[in-house]
Amino acid sequence: MRIVLDGMGGDHAPEVTVAGAVQAARDFGVHILLVGPEPLLREELKKYEDTSRITLVHAADWIRMDEHPAAAVRAKPQNSMSVGMQLVKQGEGDAFVTCGNTGAALAAALFTLGRIRGVKRPALTTLFPTLDGQALVLDIGANADCKPLYLQQFARMGDLYARHVLEWSDPRVGLLSIGEEAGKGNTLVQEAFSLLQETEAIHFVGNVEPKEVVQGQVDVVVTDGFTGNVFIKTAEATGTLLLDVLKEEVKKRPVAAAAMLLAKSAFKATMRRLDPREFGGAPLLGVNGVVIIGHGRSDAYAVRNAVRTGIQAVEARIVERLTHALMS
Amino acid sequence: MRIVLDGMGGDHAPEVTVAGAVQAARDFGVHILLVGPEPLLREELKKYEDTSRITLVHAADWIRMDEHPAAAVRAKPQNSMSVGMQLVKQGEGDAFVTCGNTGAALAAALFTLGRIRGVKRPALTTLFPTLDGQALVLDIGANADCKPLYLQQFARMGDLYARHVLEWSDPRVGLLSIGEEAGKGNTLVQEAFSLLQETEAIHFVGNVEPKEVVQGQVDVVVTDGFTGNVFIKTAEATGTLLLDVLKEEVKKRPVAAAAMLLAKSAFKATMRRLDPREFGGAPLLGVNGVVIIGHGRSDAYAVRNAVRTGIQAVEARIVERLTHALMS
Repeated sequence: MRIVLDGMGGDHAPEVTVAGAVQAARDFGVHILLVGPEPLLREELKKYEDTSRITLVHAADWIRMDEHPAAAVRAKPQNSMSVGMQLVKQGEGDAFVTCGNTGAALAAALFTLGRIRGVKRPALTTLFPTLDGQALVLDIGANADCKPLYLQQFARMGDLYARHVLEWSDPRVGLLSIGEEAGKGNTLVQEAFSLLQETEAIHFVGNVEPKEVVQGQVDVVVTDGFTGNVFIKTAEATGTLLLDVLKEEVKKRPVAAAAMLLAKSAFKATMRRLDPREFGGAPLLGVNGVVIIGHGRSDAYAVRNAVRTGIQAVEARIVERLTHALMS
Repeated sequence: MRIVLDGMGGDHAPEVTVAGAVQAARDFGVHILLVGPEPLLREELKKYEDTSRITLVHAADWIRMDEHPAAAVRAKPQNSMSVGMQLVKQGEGDAFVTCGNTGAALAAALFTLGRIRGVKRPALTTLFPTLDGQALVLDIGANADCKPLYLQQFARMGDLYARHVLEWSDPRVGLLSIGEEAGKGNTLVQEAFSLLQETEAIHFVGNVEPKEVVQGQVDVVVTDGFTGNVFIKTAEATGTLLLDVLKEEVKKRPVAAAAMLLAKSAFKATMRRLDPREFGGAPLLGVNGVVIIGHGRSDAYAVRNAVRTGIQAVEARIVERLTHALMS
């Protein structure tokens, strides 16, 4: 198997991408096609002894985390994402993995790989931490405006990914809303609810509120890209707020400050359980190729985990499954 | 001044509502018209010595926290909310305060008080905790489907409430979106953005993401009721998740568990800063009368604080101000 890895994706590229490539090649025995400016990557690769399963593929340019996604992809045809996805398209690589600019990955994928036939809109996904594991949430930002049919397709794609790549048995699919009863929510949600009820291939559990998601009462959370993006960003922001306020209050109290040092390992373990970087990235579903997007703040281990997700998606033949399911 | 208080509103009514009424009458020197089944309230009131400024107003019925709002209001015309709002409508009370079922308060207000002339849709509001205070967020659930004009009106109503009742000078008004730049967001947000830019009466700071809200970079957050509801519920759910996971991890570690006892006061102070019950309730804006809704889990002190918010809204003549601003 050959995994194409964006050598320039993420806040700490190329250091962590190269390190992650080395770890992944060693741990999983796959070939890594590492894409980016060759001199830069070669220099970084010199740090490691065994690089036999890593092949550098030159791409002159790359897209920064803060660039306007679509504009950057258009302006830089030789960016590492577009070049890497081209390898997948041509069959030279089996999956594309990046920890870079999510919007740019979406734009490059639409441009280079295109959609699976029958898919109206691809969806960005994430693994969202819950009390006892994770939930797959989609769409988290590819489509700010959605139609009910898109949400039905997100549900089917999320279900197949959860079943076959994450290997969750009989995943419960919920529709993010503002009340559990049928009929709660905006017009989009109400109409999507009806469609999802009729979708026999999935185990639809109805509307879910944020509380049910974090409690682990649902495996796949379906929502439009605007709401989904607000959802994940609110969760991240609130967690940060809570910890920041706690830090301020601890600082005011010398005894508490001393005590917190003794509780440090519990805090670290908590953060690890809630940190999306631990989960190994999540797919862009509905494009004609495996595309896995890891967290921008990924370290080498997170990059390695994102590669593993790519391997699992290839082994599960997810694109074939989606193609088969959605063309009907 | 006479504040009408729903004696049966909230998870812990009538104990905490009666206690809160007594505290408010004592602390603020106002008259409280306490509405609910008279025998029940009278029994509860016996616990207190000075009840001279509290008048019981009989309402045979009340709406539970878990009832379907509109249906319950229709089925129970003698519920404490409708009876209480009728007092405000007839000029016998200056403001209505409840810690009860939010949806029912909205339904009863629309039915009994009606909208201010010119207001397309009333908005539910909340004070959302930030790093250095609070932000007023609206709409948080009254209107699942919104038009750009509604959001413009929410902005104007929120601005006036923030200025005159909360006494925040020159409040910064932001539009909740999934990117800070103009043009980010769904169609509703994009169109509302243009309207808000043209609204000279407010200090519009553009799109804001959840991160900016919690960091205190905006005072009034404008959003549709679906997104606003997901926003506040996600924040609450995530905070709970973080603390639940932390508790689990602390339990596994005896040293950490012991240390946490020493840090307890810092945790308590943190919770207090982030607890909406501390903020004294928030208004239903756009109905023809002052309606303040406190948290369902309110204790007596929170009920007292909600009454204080009602007093401040009356003193600031907020309904007059909204009427004047929105009829033009």
